[in-house]
Amino acid sequence: MALKVGIVGGGQLARMMIAPAVELGLDVRVLAEEHGMSASLAATATGDYRDLETVRAFAKDVDVVTFDHEHVPQEVLRALVADGVAVHPGPDALQFAQDKLRMRARLAELGAPQPEWAAVSDAAQLQAFLDANGGRAVVKTPRGGYDGKGVRVVSSPEEVADWFETGTLLAEELVDFSRELAQQVARRPSGELVVYPVVETVQRGGVCAEVIAPAPHGAARLVEVAAEIGRSIAEGLGVTGMLAVELFETTDERLVVNELAMRPHNSGHWSQDGAVTSQFEQHLRAVLDLPLGDTSPRQPWAVMVNILGGPATDSLESRLPGALAAHPAAKVHTYGKAPRPGRKVGHVNTTGEDLDATVYEARAAAAFFAD
Amino acid sequence: MALKVGIVGGGQLARMMIAPAVELGLDVRVLAEEHGMSASLAATATGDYRDLETVRAFAKDVDVVTFDHEHVPQEVLRALVADGVAVHPGPDALQFAQDKLRMRARLAELGAPQPEWAAVSDAAQLQAFLDANGGRAVVKTPRGGYDGKGVRVVSSPEEVADWFETGTLLAEELVDFSRELAQQVARRPSGELVVYPVVETVQRGGVCAEVIAPAPHGAARLVEVAAEIGRSIAEGLGVTGMLAVELFETTDERLVVNELAMRPHNSGHWSQDGAVTSQFEQHLRAVLDLPLGDTSPRQPWAVMVNILGGPATDSLESRLPGALAAHPAAKVHTYGKAPRPGRKVGHVNTTGEDLDATVYEARAAAAFFAD
Repeated sequence: MALKVGIVGGGQLARMMIAPAVELGLDVRVLAEEHGMSASLAATATGDYRDLETVRAFAKDVDVVTFDHEHVPQEVLRALVADGVAVHPGPDALQFAQDKLRMRARLAELGAPQPEWAAVSDAAQLQAFLDANGGRAVVKTPRGGYDGKGVRVVSSPEEVADWFETGTLLAEELVDFSRELAQQVARRPSGELVVYPVVETVQRGGVCAEVIAPAPHGAARLVEVAAEIGRSIAEGLGVTGMLAVELFETTDERLVVNELAMRPHNSGHWSQDGAVTSQFEQHLRAVLDLPLGDTSPRQPWAVMVNILGGPATDSLESRLPGALAAHPAAKVHTYGKAPRPGRKVGHVNTTGEDLDATVYEARAAAAFFAD
Repeated sequence: MALKVGIVGGGQLARMMIAPAVELGLDVRVLAEEHGMSASLAATATGDYRDLETVRAFAKDVDVVTFDHEHVPQEVLRALVADGVAVHPGPDALQFAQDKLRMRARLAELGAPQPEWAAVSDAAQLQAFLDANGGRAVVKTPRGGYDGKGVRVVSSPEEVADWFETGTLLAEELVDFSRELAQQVARRPSGELVVYPVVETVQRGGVCAEVIAPAPHGAARLVEVAAEIGRSIAEGLGVTGMLAVELFETTDERLVVNELAMRPHNSGHWSQDGAVTSQFEQHLRAVLDLPLGDTSPRQPWAVMVNILGGPATDSLESRLPGALAAHPAAKVHTYGKAPRPGRKVGHVNTTGEDLDATVYEARAAAAFFAD
């Protein structure tokens, strides 16, 4: 009997696990939020991931439960574990991806490099943080933010007055960074851990736009330090499956941790076509406690450019022939989502021996899908 | 709306089209023979592909109908075409893959290099062919053979006496070959055609055991001649989608055509991990008349070793951890099939810069699944 993986959430990350699951001979099943989602091909159930009985029924027939996102409530996760279900990543690890205040506190205990930060419960506390950090700060809601949502750069407490009603906020130093990087690692329940090369990520409007793997101009020390940060966080937090650590490289050449994701991550989409083992295959292997795969790049450079829906994007299908004709070596991935403005609906991967050419080809192919 | 591809047949070739369909954002649907087949994840219908109404109902909602195998009857194919359904490859091409006598006759018209052959309807005709060809011949039933079935090497007509009752047979010269090669090409309805590098195939007991891509010691002339044979057959027969031309390289360094397959083929499984565009993605692109992808190898060498069920093979899942642990860079593909003895149930792909090491790794990883 094939090993059975149950994925909670029907988005594109679940979708992109389908291909490697089929290749490896795994039985992949998805609990989707509704019909017609990205991962609907593998959907065997539809329902609310916040409802214990829905998730419990889904989990009954699988060897492991894993996730498309980090939003399944702790009480649901802990009930599954109490039922004897293998849940990876588990609730003890996921709490740190679900709550940025807990993450900062735990990373501080682990000694991971971080921006200055504070938990602020009212305007006075935030003002004190601003005063101590040059008058500006990044304020985040501890829960539910993604792609720039739940994040504001402020210079006065009034700018987040509406948020204080929701509870304690996270205030962070506005890091003076030269670029953003991401470090991915995979870890099995039995402890085996593998490290991907650190990559450079380029954000636009709070959304990942491009990724270059490996990070250009990555001195050996940078690569080692990033890997060590990833390794120590995965082990310190008990992460199972894929972990992405978003990092700032500061203008004085330090790395500090920005965000964590305990699942396949946009910064690792390049690995589908650029690494021997993609992050999606690796996540499946890791959560099933199967031996992990080689993380080596297949080519010197891999570049990923996201496809976002634009105001005039009619359909991705209508753009596909032009992109494929002009760029026969580009790998176009689309997610089966309607191209609403700003929505991530696909990406293009390219690989090559020359960085500039590889970047150019990915951008040029992705441009066919833009307005 | 996503482009919709309907695949008739639920075997492993259909299964292996699922991954690239999901990546490209295609809506893939399978008409499976029964429940629980290799491609069941994408099965939207179950039924007999010989039944026109079953196939017609399946074809109603797709943009193109294509195939896991070549066994759909001509009358069913022609009825679909008459209905206005896009069918690729179409019946005019498929007849030559369905009937080896027709194939030999048509290839003769095209001037393709072939073994000596004859249609033989009785013992006297076969004896005459034997007398003219050194006393031995390969006799084939024109229809329904695969993996060595429907093929006998004979030195007297009595050895196929049982077959003459079924109709005219194909007698072929027993070619004195040094090795077997396979040439794959992809062709769109609009005419675009791309060529894969010619590969070496190693058969054991009439079944493909290993493939090395590209064929080692492939002189430039060999590569060109093989490509030209593939191109001329695809164009001459009007093939759409993937075409595999199985070739003998004779001891006097000629190439002659052994068999044709108008679908993804075992000789092209290496391309999943070894080529920029796999044969499965290419087939989907071709039958949808989308621009074709780059057929370049990703590495100097790619090797594929088939996994066959053995007398003591308990389950592939039980062997997977050992194989993955010992060979983290090997790509293991399994088909969700019970490992009955001799049955193709999976394969291993490896890529590398050194041929011997790449062959060794593929064999060693595949050996974990053998008895």
